[in-house]
Amino acid sequence: MSTATLTIDLDAIVSNWRALDAMTDCETAAVVKADGYGLGAGKVGRALARAGAHRFFVAAAEEGAALRQALGPSPVISVFSGHMAGDSDIIGDTDLVPMINSVDQLIRHFEALPGHPFGIQLDTGMNRLGMEPGEWAAIRDVALAQGPQLIMSHLACADEPDIEMNEAQIRAFVEMTEGADVPRSLANTGGILLGKNYHFDLTRPGIGTFGGRPFADASPVVRLEAPVIQCRDLAPGESVGYGNKFVATRQTRIATIAAGYADGLHRVLGPKAQAFAEEEPCPIAGRISMDTIGVDITDLKGDPTSLELIGPQQTPDMLADYAGTIGYEILTSLGGRYTRRYTGG
Amino acid sequence: MSTATLTIDLDAIVSNWRALDAMTDCETAAVVKADGYGLGAGKVGRALARAGAHRFFVAAAEEGAALRQALGPSPVISVFSGHMAGDSDIIGDTDLVPMINSVDQLIRHFEALPGHPFGIQLDTGMNRLGMEPGEWAAIRDVALAQGPQLIMSHLACADEPDIEMNEAQIRAFVEMTEGADVPRSLANTGGILLGKNYHFDLTRPGIGTFGGRPFADASPVVRLEAPVIQCRDLAPGESVGYGNKFVATRQTRIATIAAGYADGLHRVLGPKAQAFAEEEPCPIAGRISMDTIGVDITDLKGDPTSLELIGPQQTPDMLADYAGTIGYEILTSLGGRYTRRYTGG
Repeated sequence: MSTATLTIDLDAIVSNWRALDAMTDCETAAVVKADGYGLGAGKVGRALARAGAHRFFVAAAEEGAALRQALGPSPVISVFSGHMAGDSDIIGDTDLVPMINSVDQLIRHFEALPGHPFGIQLDTGMNRLGMEPGEWAAIRDVALAQGPQLIMSHLACADEPDIEMNEAQIRAFVEMTEGADVPRSLANTGGILLGKNYHFDLTRPGIGTFGGRPFADASPVVRLEAPVIQCRDLAPGESVGYGNKFVATRQTRIATIAAGYADGLHRVLGPKAQAFAEEEPCPIAGRISMDTIGVDITDLKGDPTSLELIGPQQTPDMLADYAGTIGYEILTSLGGRYTRRYTGG
Repeated sequence: MSTATLTIDLDAIVSNWRALDAMTDCETAAVVKADGYGLGAGKVGRALARAGAHRFFVAAAEEGAALRQALGPSPVISVFSGHMAGDSDIIGDTDLVPMINSVDQLIRHFEALPGHPFGIQLDTGMNRLGMEPGEWAAIRDVALAQGPQLIMSHLACADEPDIEMNEAQIRAFVEMTEGADVPRSLANTGGILLGKNYHFDLTRPGIGTFGGRPFADASPVVRLEAPVIQCRDLAPGESVGYGNKFVATRQTRIATIAAGYADGLHRVLGPKAQAFAEEEPCPIAGRISMDTIGVDITDLKGDPTSLELIGPQQTPDMLADYAGTIGYEILTSLGGRYTRRYTGG
């Protein structure tokens, strides 16, 4: 095995989704965009469908078509980017529900696929996707007359419970949807945790299902283990890797492992991340290369055959802190070269 | 089209490879590890094989097997990680040439695949891959008696022409290979540019072929264009995206484009990168999301249908500077969700 192994615990994913579902009295959808946050939308989607998820969300129509193939005809698959130019065939052929973001998209949808299900996405202040209040007011009656399945909006600051923006968004959402006899959805993972008045009729957890912040009680989902290519001894003064960034200050043993930034382990992680031999942390030595990483294993009892980069000792959220980003990006960066092993489900 | 389009110019790749080949009097191989630096090892490999490349390098045996399928039986495919535990079947079945990195690998190779071609990788100071001088001295005669195809080492600081390390590595390489009647290889792209005494019998350009630094005269290879999902007007004081990081200071028009960090556009790029409407730069507004990016298009004459993120105006090396990394990582991060379009070749 010369590539690293990414183990994805489908039981943990299901248990996280169920825990988030148990926090509300409404329906819980599953957000599996970006190939299920990098963990495999098909496999994850099937596990969650078996666990009772009926509605799935993806970012793009192309993702929806791939998910349809994995899930079969029954589940509802909604598309956040709505009905874009060129999407009509995919939406029609694979029975997707576009979340309409603008008057342009609404007209496109009604013209290309009359009678085909759709949802409405409203902007309540994030200014990213969805109709503006004025736009919505102008076409609300026309849109509602065609029976949208769902009206949704998205929170810009759900991870920061104290911020005033959350309350402002909820007020805007209620105002814009008042009197519409259509199921409503506002909450992502953060929104579920914010409390009951954010839940409405359907929640849309993403990152929490995959074990990440802000869902503090989530079960860990991912384990990444890289095989050791070789080990070597360094005398003090010898250096490791590009630009000689690690210089041995003592008699040192270095393991070279088969994983690198081409596998989504951001180069910037180098100075802070560690590799683990069971529970023993080993510092990364020098720059992360495209395909390899040097690890200082001097303090281990013997040479390991593999080292763990993601697991209980070093979570995606910890790596995110080291890289100055968020756990979402650590997950969606996980590369195509891993051997992917699924457990449970 | 709700996903972005990545256009890869195979003619530019071939012309870069030929330009690097023309700088030396020796054979030029092609390094296409990490799926051809993220641009498609099969497509790129076939184009370079037609252009005259006979020898290809990949990082892992699994990559070699996939490349063999794309290239057919003739080209030589060498594997930098050598002959790891579990690799014997792939190496034998798909006719790969492992670059042996250690005595362990040498024994494994001779035992599992006696008579099967191999190469030798020596460490000349980078302490990443390859045999140490002492290790090599001990088994050199045994290894040479089995007729390795190639002896190679790798430069740690080839991008920094003035650094003493380059000369030290060349001296170590000459010393370790003196008298061995086997073709030798030391130079990556940087090594080719360092000059004749780094070229030996075979060079191994990677990043230069793909248009990146340090090959300053390279032709640009990649273009990335993201479709606009919708455009909206903001009043002064309104904000965009997660955490409200962009706040409009004037009447502002925002385009939301369909690409994000799940497509390998690192989240950290947000404050510095731009999106281009032909040659007109438009600042990114707020945080890069997983699947979308807000762009300030206020100063454009009209609403664009798509915006360019990588191209002549904003190269992978420029994005790398913005993200505090190297162009290699920008390329290998390019995600799986793009529509990939190949031109030329």
